[in-house]
Amino acid sequence: MTGAALIILSTGFFMNQSNAETLAIAVHGGAGTIERGQMTEEREAAIREALADAVRQGRKVLEAGGSSMDAVTRAVIRLEEAPEFNAGRGSVLTNEGTVEMDASIMDGSNLQAGAVAAIKGVRNPVKAARLVLEESPHVMLVGEGAGTFSRDHDLEFMDEEWFITDFRRQQLESIQAEDQAATQLSENWFSTVGAVALDADGNLAAATSTGGMSNKRWGRVGDSPIVGAGTYADNRSCAVSATGHGEFFIRHVVAYDICARMRHAGQSLDEASDELINQVLVEAGGTGGVIAVDGQGNIAQPFNTAGMYRAAMGADGKLTVEIYRDESDEDENSD
Amino acid sequence: MTGAALIILSTGFFMNQSNAETLAIAVHGGAGTIERGQMTEEREAAIREALADAVRQGRKVLEAGGSSMDAVTRAVIRLEEAPEFNAGRGSVLTNEGTVEMDASIMDGSNLQAGAVAAIKGVRNPVKAARLVLEESPHVMLVGEGAGTFSRDHDLEFMDEEWFITDFRRQQLESIQAEDQAATQLSENWFSTVGAVALDADGNLAAATSTGGMSNKRWGRVGDSPIVGAGTYADNRSCAVSATGHGEFFIRHVVAYDICARMRHAGQSLDEASDELINQVLVEAGGTGGVIAVDGQGNIAQPFNTAGMYRAAMGADGKLTVEIYRDESDEDENSD
Repeated sequence: MTGAALIILSTGFFMNQSNAETLAIAVHGGAGTIERGQMTEEREAAIREALADAVRQGRKVLEAGGSSMDAVTRAVIRLEEAPEFNAGRGSVLTNEGTVEMDASIMDGSNLQAGAVAAIKGVRNPVKAARLVLEESPHVMLVGEGAGTFSRDHDLEFMDEEWFITDFRRQQLESIQAEDQAATQLSENWFSTVGAVALDADGNLAAATSTGGMSNKRWGRVGDSPIVGAGTYADNRSCAVSATGHGEFFIRHVVAYDICARMRHAGQSLDEASDELINQVLVEAGGTGGVIAVDGQGNIAQPFNTAGMYRAAMGADGKLTVEIYRDESDEDENSD
Repeated sequence: MTGAALIILSTGFFMNQSNAETLAIAVHGGAGTIERGQMTEEREAAIREALADAVRQGRKVLEAGGSSMDAVTRAVIRLEEAPEFNAGRGSVLTNEGTVEMDASIMDGSNLQAGAVAAIKGVRNPVKAARLVLEESPHVMLVGEGAGTFSRDHDLEFMDEEWFITDFRRQQLESIQAEDQAATQLSENWFSTVGAVALDADGNLAAATSTGGMSNKRWGRVGDSPIVGAGTYADNRSCAVSATGHGEFFIRHVVAYDICARMRHAGQSLDEASDELINQVLVEAGGTGGVIAVDGQGNIAQPFNTAGMYRAAMGADGKLTVEIYRDESDEDENSD
């Protein structure tokens, strides 16, 4: 670590010491039908480590006085790089065997937002979404145009082969061979990634990134790049990142409605997010979950599926990494 | 008119006679900086006639017992076909001189929704959006994939030349020649089209269609195809179609927030839509307006610009067609 970096860290630490107890970050890596024993121990360990590391990296940004925008960007990049999740490297394949990714990010301090949909080849779609926010007057860019914009701004691109794992290739082959088990597994597991954070200045941010649906065609876009559906952040209420059956999250404007219930109906973060996921979506038949954080650092992680890959670190600095529904006392301490 | 059609109309009339007083439909054709005398009399007359006819055609569907979904589809098709508006034929041109269109539609009775973005060549984008709703498990399709889906389902396609008017070609040339007046005019006028309706069964629907921003690039998508931002319909609150500076409508989830304020905060349609357009968006610097209808047939058409192309027919069967802010007593009777 250089002297310059040390100084920045120290400055951050002193600047924000008074608010340090309200730092909060949470991440998810998908939700769906998952029971103990379905995964190898190695795979489960890799998933838990990636989730934990995403939280730790985001938390480090926050502890250094960094913004919630930087923290969620850092955490989502970590999960995009991990081949275990359906985002960036490891994304599911389209009907044509290609990778088309969606991502969005929102800054709760000013409601600025950026999103890309059906983008190809960009190493970290969350960086492309943030670039749209920072370097264009627009919120959403789609398809080849989003790629051109990202290239023009020197984002890193990778060959398609870099994104494609053996697991995803086999998954697509099984689905296209009409293997019912593979199809069902793919339809019951939505492994989008996302992060929400509260920084020492009291600013909220949220980001979401995904490869979308296995075997998707026709340029299908789910909720992940839709501001209001898959991602929303507003300092006056909360920051939300969703994972689940995207069509239901779009129709019910899930991420924004959690914020709207807090602002318009005076609900708490827990009440609003629980009502959306465990009542509204359950009645509609929509499966999935959200991670959410409010301005007081409260964290909610409701889901209506058997499991959701999730990790969080709140005011107490204690790291939790969970997959199954019945995990609640298996917390591990932070590093 | 054939005998069969007459029977259907009659059946509809008798079936719905008891609810006939609650039929309502409204349309818009854009909002922005427009003062009396900026347009030729011929152009203004053509715009007023198209708006009036869109309402009349939608109203006929409703009077025949047709659904609000059919009424808004019919009204939007009428405006897409009119070369005066920025949707379908007459759409603005992209930076490359091409036409890329966006549309969405939502059924308030079941929250089903369909949307297409950055689609090329389809004669009526609102039909493509409705096809996504009815014939796919998805809500949103973008780019070439949306076109493939529409072709596979036998929607009508037209050569690009059919969409492009001399007016739009000259507009693009002026903007690209950095003609300040043309650029400013284009930046201050958002001529998306849309419709909202309440049918005799008490069902609400909304639809929106646009060519987007003049000289747009990078696959830019505004609020029109975004469920929650440019379009929303929910029988429990209202149906909304927006027109304006799309990025602001996305960040503030305008269409859905009007519905959310009615459901979560108990506001009336007038209060909710006025607060969004004339407070929230004005404070944020976002220009535009909405048309909205609630389950009682109340119609709201707030806008924060000098003018909005709008027409409506509510419970009293009286047609209003307005452009400027100071028009309120210039109503004309329905046919």
